[in-house]
Amino acid sequence: KSLSAHYDFYTSIGHMTDLLFTEKDMVTSLKEYIRVEESKLEQVKRWANQLDSLSITAIQDPEGFLGHPVNAFKLMKRLNTEWAVLETLVLSDTTEAFISNLTMQRKHFPTEDDQTGAAKALLRLQDTYHLDTNTIATGNLPGVTYKSPMTVEDCYELGKIAYSDSDYYHTELWMSQSLQQLDQGEESTIDTVTVLDYLSYAIYQQGELERALEFTKRLLSLDSEHQRARGNLKYFEFQMLQQRSDEEEAAQK
Amino acid sequence: KSLSAHYDFYTSIGHMTDLLFTEKDMVTSLKEYIRVEESKLEQVKRWANQLDSLSITAIQDPEGFLGHPVNAFKLMKRLNTEWAVLETLVLSDTTEAFISNLTMQRKHFPTEDDQTGAAKALLRLQDTYHLDTNTIATGNLPGVTYKSPMTVEDCYELGKIAYSDSDYYHTELWMSQSLQQLDQGEESTIDTVTVLDYLSYAIYQQGELERALEFTKRLLSLDSEHQRARGNLKYFEFQMLQQRSDEEEAAQK
Repeated sequence: KSLSAHYDFYTSIGHMTDLLFTEKDMVTSLKEYIRVEESKLEQVKRWANQLDSLSITAIQDPEGFLGHPVNAFKLMKRLNTEWAVLETLVLSDTTEAFISNLTMQRKHFPTEDDQTGAAKALLRLQDTYHLDTNTIATGNLPGVTYKSPMTVEDCYELGKIAYSDSDYYHTELWMSQSLQQLDQGEESTIDTVTVLDYLSYAIYQQGELERALEFTKRLLSLDSEHQRARGNLKYFEFQMLQQRSDEEEAAQK
Repeated sequence: KSLSAHYDFYTSIGHMTDLLFTEKDMVTSLKEYIRVEESKLEQVKRWANQLDSLSITAIQDPEGFLGHPVNAFKLMKRLNTEWAVLETLVLSDTTEAFISNLTMQRKHFPTEDDQTGAAKALLRLQDTYHLDTNTIATGNLPGVTYKSPMTVEDCYELGKIAYSDSDYYHTELWMSQSLQQLDQGEESTIDTVTVLDYLSYAIYQQGELERALEFTKRLLSLDSEHQRARGNLKYFEFQMLQQRSDEEEAAQK
């Protein structure tokens, strides 16, 4: 079976294809910036290394060093002229071509809405084909040639989009996936505490107090000062007590 | 014998010693800039390389690639979010600490006059001790521990300072030295034509028409459109004819 989604969030697949070529051009432009910046840095390093070894020698015996009239002249020349040339080199702008290219291309870039749309299309697809979250995240989808593993951040992003739609079912699925990948040691800018915060709340919203409490405790073990988690801990415990007494009451009737 | 010059051009040798330490601090500050800039560039390169290989794959079969819903989502995410993060990184200013340090220290730097003064002290020393230009330039001065070879540019600088003092004797010495080092293949920002221009003029000013003509011809063999040299060629040839007829006239009397 084919997994092609209907991309109602973006004008057409043709338009998206254009974006792939735009991105390729941007990468070329970026690599040119890297080349220019590396060659600038190479020049600066050569000067720094030369001066570094000269400096080490000079400072061991300053008066002896300056007794050489050529050294005295060259010191004057460096400080009066050459450091200014180096300053101009250091301040030379290597970013201009790339940045102006990016600014121009950005007009055609997708928006926040397009990004959200693509995320929601992915969530719908997951439901339609009953796909396991981990299968999607590792890129092991059936009938797909290009494996595209999702990062912790990608999964977190999906979870957050579901969350802002009050879709706690998918929030739980994708925050769990983020947490699993973090637990497996994946490096990320997303931290475990933030993921646990969303996860415990999504689980609480689905009525599973005990599991919500479990994740809240794990959060507090990482950050004992977390204000909302401390509040939630007390609230979840209170709710559970309440539930138990309700149940006991019902049993006694 | 000691070669220590009297540095009337700069307050004291103590002050010059301070400058050596200032320069050492500037090198440290420069190396810190290099470190920060390299780590920034490393991050940019990592992103560029990842995207480069992804791009190559994607473009081989755009529709197949975009048929994978995770690829479509990640493309939206990159274009809407990640390129902007990269832009911020590219535009982040790594020069600030070094430049503000340099600007602060520059107040204590020697001036153009100090540089000229040091050059003239060197020329006086050359006369006093009857030192050969090549000996000074290669750093083989007697009684000196730190060899400090002079570059083409250093020699050219000395020649120019002598020239602006109408001191054509030292102009010739130091422009000849520049030329010799260029002829030996030293890389320089100074070009042979410019050196030959000064050199032939300095020689002409000392009355040696034939040698001046020789260097002018060499200049024109490198740059046949050089206006001043073309004028000089005619003028020197005319002067030489004139001289010869004067001599013949004197002989006939």
